[in-house]
Amino acid sequence: MELETQTLTFDTKGFNDIIDITARLQRLLNDGNYDEGRMLVFVPGATAGLTTIEYEGGLIQDMKDFFDRISPMESHYHHNDRWHDGNGYAHVRAAMLKPDLTIPFVHQRLCLGTWQQVVLIDFDNRPRKRELVVQICGKKH
Amino acid sequence: MELETQTLTFDTKGFNDIIDITARLQRLLNDGNYDEGRMLVFVPGATAGLTTIEYEGGLIQDMKDFFDRISPMESHYHHNDRWHDGNGYAHVRAAMLKPDLTIPFVHQRLCLGTWQQVVLIDFDNRPRKRELVVQICGKKH
Amino acid sequence: MELETQTLTFDTKGFNDIIDITARLQRLLNDGNYDEGRMLVFVPGATAGLTTIEYEGGLIQDMKDFFDRISPMESHYHHNDRWHDGNGYAHVRAAMLKPDLTIPFVHQRLCLGTWQQVVLIDFDNRPRKRELVVQICGKKH
Repeated sequence: MELETQTLTFDTKGFNDIIDITARLQRLLNDGNYDEGRMLVFVPGATAGLTTIEYEGGLIQDMKDFFDRISPMESHYHHNDRWHDGNGYAHVRAAMLKPDLTIPFVHQRLCLGTWQQVVLIDFDNRPRKRELVVQICGKKH
Repeated sequence: MELETQTLTFDTKGFNDIIDITARLQRLLNDGNYDEGRMLVFVPGATAGLTTIEYEGGLIQDMKDFFDRISPMESHYHHNDRWHDGNGYAHVRAAMLKPDLTIPFVHQRLCLGTWQQVVLIDFDNRPRKRELVVQICGKKH
Repeated sequence: MELETQTLTFDTKGFNDIIDITARLQRLLNDGNYDEGRMLVFVPGATAGLTTIEYEGGLIQDMKDFFDRISPMESHYHHNDRWHDGNGYAHVRAAMLKPDLTIPFVHQRLCLGTWQQVVLIDFDNRPRKRELVVQICGKKH
């Protein structure tokens, strides 16, 4: 079994920016000749998270509406009282969504549904450069 | 260390159908003679998710009430405007719950609490046949 | 590649008690001389969960406010009707947050952001002794 850790960098716009990272993840498998195993994706930082969605414009808007509803940007946050950076809402959303996602792969392909893409969501209130940690554990062919 | 990937199939009714999959997962450990390691469970598709709950009728209803509250079926979803399949609510819930769960095991048993079961939740608005990917990584005895 | 499973015990106060467990996790890596790999953290039981946050007093309060808003303690829960233990709200929150978290590490350090700590959140309505399962899979140096 092989273990390999890489980083992938993404420029994000913040404010619930939802980025499809599937192709970049799949390419790591191809480049490494991995056949079967699992890929751990992790975003260091406390204002972004990872999940999967059907990546299409309607749902991207629905996800923004959802997060605005359960943790509104305009609500009062104690975090903002202390740090005055105005991103308390982003911290709460990121903690709920969590920074890790593990995806199995077989026959050199991530085991995703046809309409299921891996997304990085950046909740912060400014553009960021995000460096994801991608760790592959599996067998090469 | 051994690595093995299998699939498990479940017929689901949709509409927040919550299915206890613990016994089927534990059986894979027993059949494979696994002693110590971790089991990754993953549901391909963008309208279902995985977590653990105490599997009893009261809580099953509470979980449905919870998801109805934070992402109501009757709300407006842009996804529905585009695709007219009426399951925008299901996409949002699944993205929040996420499609992956990793459970450690030792002495041939999943490390779950006594009143903690692994569940597949199918949020879609129709019956589905769901094929879960279960990947075991660990030592045999 | 090495595989090792340990347990860590924490006394919790319940009622959304948020505990920074980062230092204890990092110490396990140091003690085991692990260089590169991943750490799976799992909380057995159905009324607690794991995630990462910036561990500071303002945000700790914001997280409590958030959970009180999406799954209020005082709402009606069918779980309470059946079991009369009054912790239905805790079950719902724990199911949403999920009991697992996987963190990669390289060069003997967990790949966390500078202001990102790993937290155990105990939602239950009484003090508990929580035993976490921590499973490390990786290379030693």
